[in-house]
Amino acid sequence: MRRFVADRARRAVAASLRGAASSSRSASPSPLAPAPRHPASPVGEAAMAASMARSMSTAVAGSPAVSLDTINPKVLKCEYAVRGEIVTHAQNLQQELQKHPESLPFDEILYCNIGNPQSLGQQPVTYFREVLSLCDHPALLDKSETHALYSSDAIERAWQILDKIPGRATGAYSHSQGIKGLRDEIAAGIAARDGFHASGDNIFLTDGASPAVHMMMQLLIRSEKDGILCPIPQYPLYSASIALHGGSLAPYFLDEETGWGLEVDELKKQLEEAQSKGITVRALVVINPGNPTGQVLAEENQKKIVEFCKNEGLVLLADEVYQENIYVEDKQFHSFKKVARSLGYTDDDLPLVSFQSVSKGYYGECGKRGGYMEITGFSPEVREQIYKVASVNLCSNISGQILASLVMNPPKAGDESFESFMEERDGILSSLARRAKALEEAFNGLEGITCNKAEGAMYLFPRLHLPQKAIGAAQAAGTAPDAYYAKRLLAATGIVVVPGSGFGQVPGTWHFRCTILPQEDKIPAIISRFKEFHEKFMDEYRD
Amino acid sequence: MRRFVADRARRAVAASLRGAASSSRSASPSPLAPAPRHPASPVGEAAMAASMARSMSTAVAGSPAVSLDTINPKVLKCEYAVRGEIVTHAQNLQQELQKHPESLPFDEILYCNIGNPQSLGQQPVTYFREVLSLCDHPALLDKSETHALYSSDAIERAWQILDKIPGRATGAYSHSQGIKGLRDEIAAGIAARDGFHASGDNIFLTDGASPAVHMMMQLLIRSEKDGILCPIPQYPLYSASIALHGGSLAPYFLDEETGWGLEVDELKKQLEEAQSKGITVRALVVINPGNPTGQVLAEENQKKIVEFCKNEGLVLLADEVYQENIYVEDKQFHSFKKVARSLGYTDDDLPLVSFQSVSKGYYGECGKRGGYMEITGFSPEVREQIYKVASVNLCSNISGQILASLVMNPPKAGDESFESFMEERDGILSSLARRAKALEEAFNGLEGITCNKAEGAMYLFPRLHLPQKAIGAAQAAGTAPDAYYAKRLLAATGIVVVPGSGFGQVPGTWHFRCTILPQEDKIPAIISRFKEFHEKFMDEYRD
Repeated sequence: MRRFVADRARRAVAASLRGAASSSRSASPSPLAPAPRHPASPVGEAAMAASMARSMSTAVAGSPAVSLDTINPKVLKCEYAVRGEIVTHAQNLQQELQKHPESLPFDEILYCNIGNPQSLGQQPVTYFREVLSLCDHPALLDKSETHALYSSDAIERAWQILDKIPGRATGAYSHSQGIKGLRDEIAAGIAARDGFHASGDNIFLTDGASPAVHMMMQLLIRSEKDGILCPIPQYPLYSASIALHGGSLAPYFLDEETGWGLEVDELKKQLEEAQSKGITVRALVVINPGNPTGQVLAEENQKKIVEFCKNEGLVLLADEVYQENIYVEDKQFHSFKKVARSLGYTDDDLPLVSFQSVSKGYYGECGKRGGYMEITGFSPEVREQIYKVASVNLCSNISGQILASLVMNPPKAGDESFESFMEERDGILSSLARRAKALEEAFNGLEGITCNKAEGAMYLFPRLHLPQKAIGAAQAAGTAPDAYYAKRLLAATGIVVVPGSGFGQVPGTWHFRCTILPQEDKIPAIISRFKEFHEKFMDEYRD
Repeated sequence: MRRFVADRARRAVAASLRGAASSSRSASPSPLAPAPRHPASPVGEAAMAASMARSMSTAVAGSPAVSLDTINPKVLKCEYAVRGEIVTHAQNLQQELQKHPESLPFDEILYCNIGNPQSLGQQPVTYFREVLSLCDHPALLDKSETHALYSSDAIERAWQILDKIPGRATGAYSHSQGIKGLRDEIAAGIAARDGFHASGDNIFLTDGASPAVHMMMQLLIRSEKDGILCPIPQYPLYSASIALHGGSLAPYFLDEETGWGLEVDELKKQLEEAQSKGITVRALVVINPGNPTGQVLAEENQKKIVEFCKNEGLVLLADEVYQENIYVEDKQFHSFKKVARSLGYTDDDLPLVSFQSVSKGYYGECGKRGGYMEITGFSPEVREQIYKVASVNLCSNISGQILASLVMNPPKAGDESFESFMEERDGILSSLARRAKALEEAFNGLEGITCNKAEGAMYLFPRLHLPQKAIGAAQAAGTAPDAYYAKRLLAATGIVVVPGSGFGQVPGTWHFRCTILPQEDKIPAIISRFKEFHEKFMDEYRD
C-alpha cells in the first residue's frame, strides 16, 4: 500500500511536468522543460510513502484528503526556479555554516540567484527612507525635534503625501487602484519621462509588479487554448503565472548571437506556429531591459514590435521594471507607450500594459513591495473588470504606494536632499555598471564560457559550452547539465546561480543566470573563487 | 451592428451571472444572486456599443481584441459588493460635494460599507507606528536625538527586529514565507494565546489575509466540481475567490433566529446536497467572529465543527481575523487550532488553516497589508507546493510582516509603553463595544428592522422587513429591495452600507451590513439621520 501511494504521487508529478513541457514548443527537449528529478532515494521514498499514507488516512469516500493527487494540477505544473531547488539547498548550507563554520570550503553563501540588491549590502536611498519613516509615524511632523533627524525636504514631502491621503490616514485601505493623488504624481512622472500624456486613472498600484502580471494573465487566459507569447529565455514569473492560470506559453526565441536580439520575424513565425496548434494568442510579453538576458532594445526594434502587436490584435505586456538600469552609453530606455505614441497610435489602437516596480532601479527596495501597471487601450467595460479584480484584494500596501510615487518623482535640483540623493543614485548605478563589466569580462575569459554584455537590468546570462563528459556526468546524476554545474559551483564556492533551464533556452544549449549585485569590493574575490572552480571543473571533464 | 455588440456583451455578463447563481443552492432566487441590473439607459447603451465597436475594431482574424466577450469568464463571474456599485456611486457623490458643497442634503459621505477604521478617524497605535518608523529608517537608531522622539522600548524593539532580518536589510525580499525570526515570534504569540505548541515553519506571512485565502482556493480547486462550504451570509472575498478559481460555492445557512447560529446539522445537509450534485467538497470556511454577522462561536459548537471536518475529510479554513474584536462579557475567542488540539487531534488528523490580519482587531491597520496564515495538518509534499506558489510572488511586504509580529507580541507589563499602549487599546475596544450597542439598539427601535447583537467583529447585519409596496418600487426600478433601500439611504443621508444580497441571505429576506466604525461622537447624529430617513421611507411605502 505504501509503495502504491508513493508511486501514485510520483506519477501525478510526472504527468503534470509532461503537461508543462507540452505547452511549450514541440521541439524536444522543450526549452522550458525542467531538469529531470533525482531518482528518489530509498530513505526519501519511504518517508514520502509514510507521509502520503498518513495524509490519505484522513480521506473518506467522496472527500479526498489533500495530497499531490488531489490538489489543483495547475499548481503542480507551475515552476519558479529563481527560488527553486538550488536555493533551498543553499539555505540548508547556510544553516550548516552557522552551526559549523569550518565545515564547508567557504565562509558565506553568496545569493546571486535573485535581483535582491539590499540582501547583498546595497544601502537604501536616504531620502526615500526618511519620507517613509515620517509617513509611518505622522505624529513626528508636529514636533520640532524632528528637524534634527530628517532633511527639511523629506519633511515637506511627507506633508504633501499626507495631504493626498483622505483623512491623512496612512493606515486605511486606499482606493483599490491606489491613492488618487499618488497615481496622479506617478502619471506626471511618466509624462515627464515620455513626453506624452499619462493619467492617474490608468495607474493600478500593486504589491510589486508580480500581482499586476497575475491580474493581466487572469484577465486574458480562458483555457489552455489561449496563449501568451513570451521570450525564451524569460523571467519565470511569466511561465509560472501562465501555468497557474491554465494557459499556454507560446515561446519566441531571443537570438544569443546578436546580443539577445528580438526579431519580429521570429515573433511572426512563433505566432503562426501557435495558431497552427489551435492556440489563440492573446498577448506578447516583452521584457526590456531583458531579464535574464540584460539587452536593451533599440527604438527602431520597439517600433516594429508595436506594429506587430497592432496588426495582430495582441495586448502588449511590457515588463519595464529595469527602466533605470542601463549601463552602456549607446543605449537608452524608451517605454513602449512612448514608442507607440510617437508612431501616432492612441488609446484606441493598441491595448498596452507597462509594469514598473520599486524593487529594481537604483533603489532596489524589494521588501517594500511597491509597483504599478499603467494600462492604456482597454475599453471602459474591460477596465471595470480589472478594477473589480483589484478591489477583491482591497488595495496594495500604502508604504509601497508612497515609494512608487517617490521613485517616479525623486528630489529635484534645488531641493535640500538633491545633491546627496544624486550622489547615492549615481554611486549605485555606476558601481553596477562596473560590476557588470568586470563579471562579463571574467566569464568571457574562461574556457567554454561565452557571455553577452549586460546592457541593462541586473544579470548576466553566460552560456556554458560543456564538454560531453560533463553532460554525461549530469545525465548520470539525473539532472540537467546546467543544473549540475550550478550545484557543483554552489558546493565548491557558496555562489548561488540559477540554471538556464529555469528560464528556458534553445534546446541543447546551457546557461546560468548570475546577478551583478554583490558589493563591488567583493567582486575580485568572487571572480577568483569562480575561476578556480571552473578551471577544476573543466580539468575534471575536458573531453 | 452597434446594437448587436452591446447585446452580446450583456448576454456574456448575464450568462456568467447565471453560472454564478447555479453554483449555489438550488432554491430560487439563489442566496447569492446579485441584484438585477438596471435596464441600460439609451445613452449608456449607445456609449457602451460605441466603445465595444471601438475595441472590436482592433481585432483581426484569430486574435480577438480584449472585450467582455473574450476575457476570462471567471473574472466576469466574480462579484465583490463591498466595493461595488453603491460605493462607486458614493465616490461620485463625494466629488460632487467637493465641487458644490451645498448641492446635497448632507455635508459628508460616511463610509460604513467596509471595515476600514482609520478611514473614519481611528488613530493608529503609537507604539506600533514608532517601531515601523524606526525600521523604515534604521539610520535613526544610531543617533542620540532619536531618544527625544521615540519611546525607549520601541527603539529596543526595532533593534530586536533588525537583528532578526538577515543583514538588517529591511529593503530586501525575505524568505517567501516571511522573515523566520518574525514567524517564530508570531508562533510564540499563538502558543501563548492557545496553550498549544505553534511553529514558525507553519506560518506564511501575506499582504493582508486576502492573498492567503486565494492561495488556499488555488491549491484546492481543480474545477467547478470542487466545492467549498461557505456560510451564508458570508464575506464576499470567499465567493469572489471561488469564482476566480473556477470552483463551486456550497452554501450553508447561518440561523438568524438563534443569533446567526452555525448548526452542524445544516453543514451535513448542505454537504450532502452538494455531493448529490456531483460536487466534491474540499473545505469548510468558518468566519469567527462572524462577518457580516458578528456572532462569536461557543467552544462546544466549535468542537462539533472540528469533528465534522475530521469525519468528512474537509480542510477547515478558519477566518479568525476578528479574534481581538469581542464586545460581550459572556463570549471569548477560541482559535480552531486550540479547539482541535484540546480534542486531542494532532497535525496528522486534520488539515487546518487559520487566517489573521493586521487590518482588524484594535489596531485596524488596513493600509499596511499585513497578515498570515498558520497551516497545520498538510503533508510535506503539499506544503512544498504551497511554498512554491508563495515563492512566485517572492514575499509579502516587510512593514506588514513586522506589524504582524507586533500585534501577536505587543508591549508587556513593565515596558515603558505598556500603560499608554493599554490605554489606547482598551479605549478603542470599549468604544467599539459601545458603538455596536448604540447602533444595534437604534436599529431595533425602528419599525420593520430587527438586528442581532454584534458580539464581535466590526459589523451589524440588520434585517429589513420591507413593506410590499417598497419591494414593488424596487422591482420597478430593476433592483433588489435591499439595494434599493441602501441607495435611497445614501441619497438621503450620505451613509454608505452594503445590501445583504452582496453577502448572500435566505431567499426572500433582506438585510444590509453597516460597520460600527464611525467615531463615537458622531454616532448620535448618524442615528438621528438614519432614523429620519427610515421613518420617511416607511411612511412612503407602508402597506
